Amino acid sequence: MRQLFALFLCLMATALFAQAPHPHVHDRSIHFPDVNGYRSLVCDFHQHTVFSDGSVFPDIRVQEALRDSLDAISLTEHLEYQPHKEDIPHPDRNRSNAIAEQAAKPYNLIVINGSEITREMPPGHNNALFLSDANKLLKDDPLEAFKEAQRQGAFVFWNHPNWVAQTKDGIAKLTDMHRQLIANKQLHGIEVVNETTYSDEALQIALDNGLTLMGTSDIHGLIDWTYKIPEGGHRPVTLVFAKERTADAIKEALFERRTAVWHNNTLIAREREMMPLLAACIKVEKASYIGPSSVCEVLLRNESDAEFLLFSTSEYTLHEHADMVVLNPNGTTKIQVKTKEQLPVFNLSFDVLNCVTAPKKHPQLQLSVRL
Amino acid sequence: MRQLFALFLCLMATALFAQAPHPHVHDRSIHFPDVNGYRSLVCDFHQHTVFSDGSVFPDIRVQEALRDSLDAISLTEHLEYQPHKEDIPHPDRNRSNAIAEQAAKPYNLIVINGSEITREMPPGHNNALFLSDANKLLKDDPLEAFKEAQRQGAFVFWNHPNWVAQTKDGIAKLTDMHRQLIANKQLHGIEVVNETTYSDEALQIALDNGLTLMGTSDIHGLIDWTYKIPEGGHRPVTLVFAKERTADAIKEALFERRTAVWHNNTLIAREREMMPLLAACIKVEKASYIGPSSVCEVLLRNESDAEFLLFSTSEYTLHEHADMVVLNPNGTTKIQVKTKEQLPVFNLSFDVLNCVTAPKKHPQLQLSVRL
Amino acid sequence: MRQLFALFLCLMATALFAQAPHPHVHDRSIHFPDVNGYRSLVCDFHQHTVFSDGSVFPDIRVQEALRDSLDAISLTEHLEYQPHKEDIPHPDRNRSNAIAEQAAKPYNLIVINGSEITREMPPGHNNALFLSDANKLLKDDPLEAFKEAQRQGAFVFWNHPNWVAQTKDGIAKLTDMHRQLIANKQLHGIEVVNETTYSDEALQIALDNGLTLMGTSDIHGLIDWTYKIPEGGHRPVTLVFAKERTADAIKEALFERRTAVWHNNTLIAREREMMPLLAACIKVEKASYIGPSSVCEVLLRNESDAEFLLFSTSEYTLHEHADMVVLNPNGTTKIQVKTKEQLPVFNLSFDVLNCVTAPKKHPQLQLSVRL
Amino acid sequence: MRQLFALFLCLMATALFAQAPHPHVHDRSIHFPDVNGYRSLVCDFHQHTVFSDGSVFPDIRVQEALRDSLDAISLTEHLEYQPHKEDIPHPDRNRSNAIAEQAAKPYNLIVINGSEITREMPPGHNNALFLSDANKLLKDDPLEAFKEAQRQGAFVFWNHPNWVAQTKDGIAKLTDMHRQLIANKQLHGIEVVNETTYSDEALQIALDNGLTLMGTSDIHGLIDWTYKIPEGGHRPVTLVFAKERTADAIKEALFERRTAVWHNNTLIAREREMMPLLAACIKVEKASYIGPSSVCEVLLRNESDAEFLLFSTSEYTLHEHADMVVLNPNGTTKIQVKTKEQLPVFNLSFDVLNCVTAPKKHPQLQLSVRL
Repeated sequence: MRQLFALFLCLMATALFAQAPHPHVHDRSIHFPDVNGYRSLVCDFHQHTVFSDGSVFPDIRVQEALRDSLDAISLTEHLEYQPHKEDIPHPDRNRSNAIAEQAAKPYNLIVINGSEITREMPPGHNNALFLSDANKLLKDDPLEAFKEAQRQGAFVFWNHPNWVAQTKDGIAKLTDMHRQLIANKQLHGIEVVNETTYSDEALQIALDNGLTLMGTSDIHGLIDWTYKIPEGGHRPVTLVFAKERTADAIKEALFERRTAVWHNNTLIAREREMMPLLAACIKVEKASYIGPSSVCEVLLRNESDAEFLLFSTSEYTLHEHADMVVLNPNGTTKIQVKTKEQLPVFNLSFDVLNCVTAPKKHPQLQLSVRL
Repeated sequence: MRQLFALFLCLMATALFAQAPHPHVHDRSIHFPDVNGYRSLVCDFHQHTVFSDGSVFPDIRVQEALRDSLDAISLTEHLEYQPHKEDIPHPDRNRSNAIAEQAAKPYNLIVINGSEITREMPPGHNNALFLSDANKLLKDDPLEAFKEAQRQGAFVFWNHPNWVAQTKDGIAKLTDMHRQLIANKQLHGIEVVNETTYSDEALQIALDNGLTLMGTSDIHGLIDWTYKIPEGGHRPVTLVFAKERTADAIKEALFERRTAVWHNNTLIAREREMMPLLAACIKVEKASYIGPSSVCEVLLRNESDAEFLLFSTSEYTLHEHADMVVLNPNGTTKIQVKTKEQLPVFNLSFDVLNCVTAPKKHPQLQLSVRL
Repeated sequence: MRQLFALFLCLMATALFAQAPHPHVHDRSIHFPDVNGYRSLVCDFHQHTVFSDGSVFPDIRVQEALRDSLDAISLTEHLEYQPHKEDIPHPDRNRSNAIAEQAAKPYNLIVINGSEITREMPPGHNNALFLSDANKLLKDDPLEAFKEAQRQGAFVFWNHPNWVAQTKDGIAKLTDMHRQLIANKQLHGIEVVNETTYSDEALQIALDNGLTLMGTSDIHGLIDWTYKIPEGGHRPVTLVFAKERTADAIKEALFERRTAVWHNNTLIAREREMMPLLAACIKVEKASYIGPSSVCEVLLRNESDAEFLLFSTSEYTLHEHADMVVLNPNGTTKIQVKTKEQLPVFNLSFDVLNCVTAPKKHPQLQLSVRL
Repeated sequence: MRQLFALFLCLMATALFAQAPHPHVHDRSIHFPDVNGYRSLVCDFHQHTVFSDGSVFPDIRVQEALRDSLDAISLTEHLEYQPHKEDIPHPDRNRSNAIAEQAAKPYNLIVINGSEITREMPPGHNNALFLSDANKLLKDDPLEAFKEAQRQGAFVFWNHPNWVAQTKDGIAKLTDMHRQLIANKQLHGIEVVNETTYSDEALQIALDNGLTLMGTSDIHGLIDWTYKIPEGGHRPVTLVFAKERTADAIKEALFERRTAVWHNNTLIAREREMMPLLAACIKVEKASYIGPSSVCEVLLRNESDAEFLLFSTSEYTLHEHADMVVLNPNGTTKIQVKTKEQLPVFNLSFDVLNCVTAPKKHPQLQLSVRL
């Protein structure tokens, strides 16, 4: 009997493989270019399965990740909230990631052991990554859980500080307990994006307190449905700028705050990470004056999934656009610049309005055009 | 804490509801017209969850069904095959459908308690529907399981008789044990379609032995992926022609063999069900001669999801097509018929090649066109 | 023979009619809502056919206009430039519009007799609309042509003042001759948009000199190709806010400067026209607080073809967006506003970045949300 | 002035070129593979412009052809029917093709001088291709026109013998005059497809009388609209199997009847041309048995634009399909064959129902599968 099922599974795997090269499978992959010296790893470190209050077995999370071309995931089950406990009484809080790791192995997807410390406010919900044993975080006193995480060398971030179930007005606010945890180096990051939400206030807290910027799906159901993948949507992810594609390198990058968050066509990052990321994404592909005129046709290449919303702040007016230029994702967009005379080199500048480096602050893109 | 989560779930439900009327959600719904006197109920009676060897919790199966506009489902976990037992040791074999029923209640989706009797050949795998207690089918002797199903008044059908793991050549073959079960009225139906497969031989067995025709997804992973929903695919379903939209009426229809199977743009049914179904699907919407000519423009309305592949066997030649006419699903297709003189009424006939009433046998569609 | 061809044409017309209600035909229609008291008429007053240097007969221009749901067109052949003269020596400069008017009659499309006075700079190219006889504008002295147009009561606008063939740097500049023509009330409008180009400088000239804002396709080839209709593009048009759907009302509106220009997802208008247009386009459809929270879900309805690029300047932060909110055309977009406490009414404000009321100036949208 | 316009045209050409490599442009290209020893040239030899009763200038026909990837066209203006004569009185009946040739030169598109002899029945309308001087065909007696065409070495084919304006019942019928013309070698081909129509009877006439099979658009308006290009439609074309890509080679092939017609997803050809064409289009890409089973997975590669409708007549039943297998255009389709035991080689056979070699006759595709 077992053999028959093994055969069956093997046949199913064959069938899956045969379907793999389908064009649609590739379309949903999340892609941003590497940034000088660093790999831009696409990561989702807040996910749930049947092992806490999610609706899928861990293997589905692995397959979703592969379809989205993620580099790393963590299944962060609620340590203290186990609504399926009657059906799934498994006592080992590492179990979910252990199953995922097994499923991920053939595909070289990185699975990082993590768990969600699930408490009332403060400290609310917090994810601890890179745990050696999640079970040891099951403590009555939440502060003990943070201490144990620290003992295991975990990277810990505050989840959905804007969650209306814990913060009625949806406004993230730092508490004394959070301040204490930060001071103790027991809290290192904060979600500026959780599921479909973004928080300007969380971003400010991160900037004020040196916290790593995190964005996660917090998926409970299916990625395809929650983020409307067939309609072109994408899950929120954390881009981690790591020295190499390993769990260790991700950990180093997280502690060093080298991240950006990609959410609903918005990029959120510190200026330090944002500027090289934009430089890697947007390039002058080609430029030439139209005949004897002093109107210069410039092709801008966008090497990323972002549809950049550029607001021109150049000294030159454009020949086809007013102020807004929209750069197609993974494509080339043509603009025409009226430089008044033919120049060997000139500068363009834009506010990148779908990118955020601080509340109400948008990076300025400078492009040097050489003929 | 619990209250907070209740609020959270409530908010999530709100969010889901807000997304409900999206056009894409409706596109995937499976639709066939009612057939004179009967409701055409769309059913999938072979599905798995984490409670046997599937990868999702039962609530996802309910949501998939709602997105596909199904009328009824059954989660037919393997009675004897429980690969997740270490994690999900729940002893009650009715548990999966109980959870689904709870999840389905607000949506009026019918959940029928069923289980898969999972044995080596013979008798292979068989699904028993309308069980009062699946646990009682856990017997060493497979024949005892069938007897218990009969005691509970179950409708039982043979799963994937073409399964290569049990029938190396993929050719369905009736065994003495199956003959005995049929004779004992312990086996009532047979899958002519399972997952992505169809079996001409199973269809012949059904016709020879008076078995109900069944088609099921046998889904283990996600419906959206296995059946490529975003690319226009659909899961296989059994259309049950029932007197009303109730579990009892479905049961009556299944025992009376009033079904058709819808698989990969193919309809499989006995002639008795096929002919009224086609008549309900395809109608002459409008007909008029073009000016003074004797070329008649006929609009054919297709009230179903099937893209009908019609091969003309009419006495008249067509003005735009050779022999093949493809009828768009849920749309109108124009043909022009050369009747040689203007007639008050004439007949068209087509072999419907994507419909099967017996191996190599296709129904003939007769349409009377009145001017 | 002639009869046969008449029949043929009649049959072709039937065929065209049968295709008319196809969904794709409607998609490309250009639609903006009426603005309080005025009809928002969609007009393209700069087009060419084989009667000057275009590549189609006038009937195609009529059919393109019908497919785009235009209300009014003018075929403005070059008076002095007739490159097809060898083949089409027709001496009557009204001929093109006369043919179009005939073709447009069954469809209630308004055809306005117009011509392009085609000269070197100054005065460059200028379109005269509402001519009684275009032939009389054929004068050696360009100023005489303007005088004759005035005599006929024409509305005259300066074409592509940014055209690199006449203005090497693409920068529109008013000449003394233009100043004179404006002073003489012989020049009334200016193209801020021509074909694929937009001119900030032309907009400034319009504002400084009280000229009507015009946007035109200046089409020579096919609308479908130049503006990539199948990919979702649209031709530039002038929205004319007219008291009724008649040529006279359009004329009155043009002289009164009641226009907006719609080009490549950009709206250009004076503040006087822009503000009521935006108010007609964007409405609060529904608003409600999420559960007991103070996060208010607001549905914004966009009743237009524009994809509005909104930059939030509200005092409240948003729960899902950073600053940019993109409103889908002809659809509803959800935003969530964090008002800190549940309010009976509150205000939202946005800079509408794809709308321009002066160079570098964007209208501010104020929305009052009532619960 | 002229210089300015020259510059203008030059700039426009630049703009057009810049748009050329757009993905959508390539999608509509009509493609069939070369057939052993011959180039499969895509040709449309029946088109109209403003020089007879069409609605575009010849340059548009050239651009349409380039977008459709045609190899050769002919603009076959009505010799005797000139409804635009008032506007376009040009006396030279070669004029239209002369303009087209000029426009086509940079693109290497072949333009063949041709004209439509436009008469009542008999002989109806007939196209003469490869004319040295179309004017000489303007004769009172239609038979004299055919004689002159013969004198010029023209290839002549009968247009739309099924045209209801000349044949009220749409049924093509050979007349004595046609028989005479054929006997005199003055008529060599016949349209089995014209615009949106197909004629079984014309096909029979061709087969009975050794006429070349022709399919043409007979376009008067725009190819994009009549054939719904954005929705995936295509114009009817004649595939000419020529020794090389030259006008001479096309002429030789036409006289030798080496053609196929591609219309509305239907291929029409003599068996002599059909069989090698199918062999070039459809290939076994890969085959392997599924594990230890005797079910063989076969990938069928379709190297053409046709969506082939295959009706299985193999001795083996299929594991996923009933009898109909639809082969995606320019793609790969998987079938699974139940060969009962693992074979080193086996044969598949299908009736290709969207291909026609004679009325009601469809080619049989034989595929040898080697493991």
